[in-house]
Amino acid sequence: MELVKKVLNNDRASIAKAITLVESSNPKDKEESKQLISSLINHPGHSIRVGFSGPPGVGKSTFIESFGTYLVNKNYKLAILAIDPSSNLTGGSILGDKTRMSEISKSQNTFIRSTPSKGSLGGVSYGTREASIILDAAGYDFIFIETVGVGQSETMAANLVDIFTLIVGPGSGDELQGIKKGITEYADIFIVNKNDGDLKLQASKTASDYKSALSFYSKQDNQAAKEVLLVSSIEQQGMDSVIDTINEIIKFNKLNKIFDVRRENQLSYWIKEEIRNQIQSKLDLEVGNDTELLDMTKAVIKGEISIYDVSDHFLDKFLK
Amino acid sequence: MELVKKVLNNDRASIAKAITLVESSNPKDKEESKQLISSLINHPGHSIRVGFSGPPGVGKSTFIESFGTYLVNKNYKLAILAIDPSSNLTGGSILGDKTRMSEISKSQNTFIRSTPSKGSLGGVSYGTREASIILDAAGYDFIFIETVGVGQSETMAANLVDIFTLIVGPGSGDELQGIKKGITEYADIFIVNKNDGDLKLQASKTASDYKSALSFYSKQDNQAAKEVLLVSSIEQQGMDSVIDTINEIIKFNKLNKIFDVRRENQLSYWIKEEIRNQIQSKLDLEVGNDTELLDMTKAVIKGEISIYDVSDHFLDKFLK
Repeated sequence: MELVKKVLNNDRASIAKAITLVESSNPKDKEESKQLISSLINHPGHSIRVGFSGPPGVGKSTFIESFGTYLVNKNYKLAILAIDPSSNLTGGSILGDKTRMSEISKSQNTFIRSTPSKGSLGGVSYGTREASIILDAAGYDFIFIETVGVGQSETMAANLVDIFTLIVGPGSGDELQGIKKGITEYADIFIVNKNDGDLKLQASKTASDYKSALSFYSKQDNQAAKEVLLVSSIEQQGMDSVIDTINEIIKFNKLNKIFDVRRENQLSYWIKEEIRNQIQSKLDLEVGNDTELLDMTKAVIKGEISIYDVSDHFLDKFLK
Repeated sequence: MELVKKVLNNDRASIAKAITLVESSNPKDKEESKQLISSLINHPGHSIRVGFSGPPGVGKSTFIESFGTYLVNKNYKLAILAIDPSSNLTGGSILGDKTRMSEISKSQNTFIRSTPSKGSLGGVSYGTREASIILDAAGYDFIFIETVGVGQSETMAANLVDIFTLIVGPGSGDELQGIKKGITEYADIFIVNKNDGDLKLQASKTASDYKSALSFYSKQDNQAAKEVLLVSSIEQQGMDSVIDTINEIIKFNKLNKIFDVRRENQLSYWIKEEIRNQIQSKLDLEVGNDTELLDMTKAVIKGEISIYDVSDHFLDKFLK
């Protein structure tokens, strides 16, 4: 397959084409996509996949550009799967994003892809896993995956990366609630952004609050300690501590076999997802075309049968 | 069933109990829940279900309390299914919410339920539809459903309500992008909040921007015009225009048979969802316990087979 070769040669146009292919819902593309991924998976690279999540307004994109520029200047090869927020409600400006990202997108060592968040779950779409396989095979050192952590997407995002970071703003006491109630399961690093100008004091206080909240979290044996870091994206300060912490945690996880186990667990998660999705599409097709469903819906409206009778009937009809 | 009678008698403790039942994932509860809903659906009330969506920070909860108080003072019976944002990332303070909601929760004509947003999709959980059947049977005039519109949850939220409103803040030009690209499909009313103090001018400008954006949207025949309204939650201004607009759109939709058709389409959406969920749970159980999956996962890691081979195998195994 010509495309496989070109991706392995880090041809950026072909990488873009390959990602478009794995994101496509066209059945013919799906078949090609399966072949592509099955080939590329046998040419694994050395990419470390880092997730960046956080509420809107904390400067996720600005941080990613600032940190990304820092890494590219240090000659790291960097791929970014960013969210294009143009088509959902939770904010961010599409133009702003494009402008900000443009500086690093010029570098030959960088590949940037914006995925519309519409229809996907907080920036994670069903093609994101495949995209990271393509980028790994293409030889990038780091793959950044930007997500908006909401509900189900948190689990999906955590299952896509080797390191999960949460970006927060100064004085965001609200999110501390979130920390206590679940995010600690996923996040390896907490990055307090906007440690600059008038916000410095508040940023330090927020970092202390996070550290204190984390002290109540009992880590398991053989687990790397969770870190809280202070950065300024606009002044590009603290970026060294971010990359050092990422590298240390990866080193620790590899030494303690956590790295591989995590990837295995993630694979088994995605296999189940793939089974679910395949069955889902098949059912959507069959249920969607079923005239029986229309008749039964009418019967539900009349109160003759319940919605549960209908689902039981279709369960019997489709499942072995 | 004793619970059915009590719900029909608008006993608030029993309504709360019934909602807890339909939200439960315990198999025994699920069986009881099915019976409860099958009974209650035969005692329909006259509730109008109104959805309130919008990005974090625009004052959704404050608006809902202000508008809710206004309606309760006019002797409307009001039920609110609110989001408890304590356990996700997108902000809002759990304590703030509780305090704000407490004023109207004292009224006998009001029922308020906070659903944790964690694990659900932007505030819509699989029990939300059942909860609104319970509240309808209990005799409420309005059922408010608060959601965070993100990806899939937009579709779910729109399929739960008779009227869908989008709340925005002054000067939020970013969301105008969203408007053009999809929200117009769902939203019937756009509410520009914070039309007070220093923000008045900006709020007016935002309302004009929305009106102008909507003028590019071509409405279908027999469809009520989409409205843009200016309100101040803290000054409780503009609430009359909101309830008037809701009542007018409902009247229009009932006259033009849109109201019933919308509810029928929603039912057919939820029937498909129920079929999907039932099959999903059954598969999760079977796939989860399948030792074959473990063996095949190992083979995928070794590169002997692909993730797609595994899903094809399980597709054959489970589907007729």
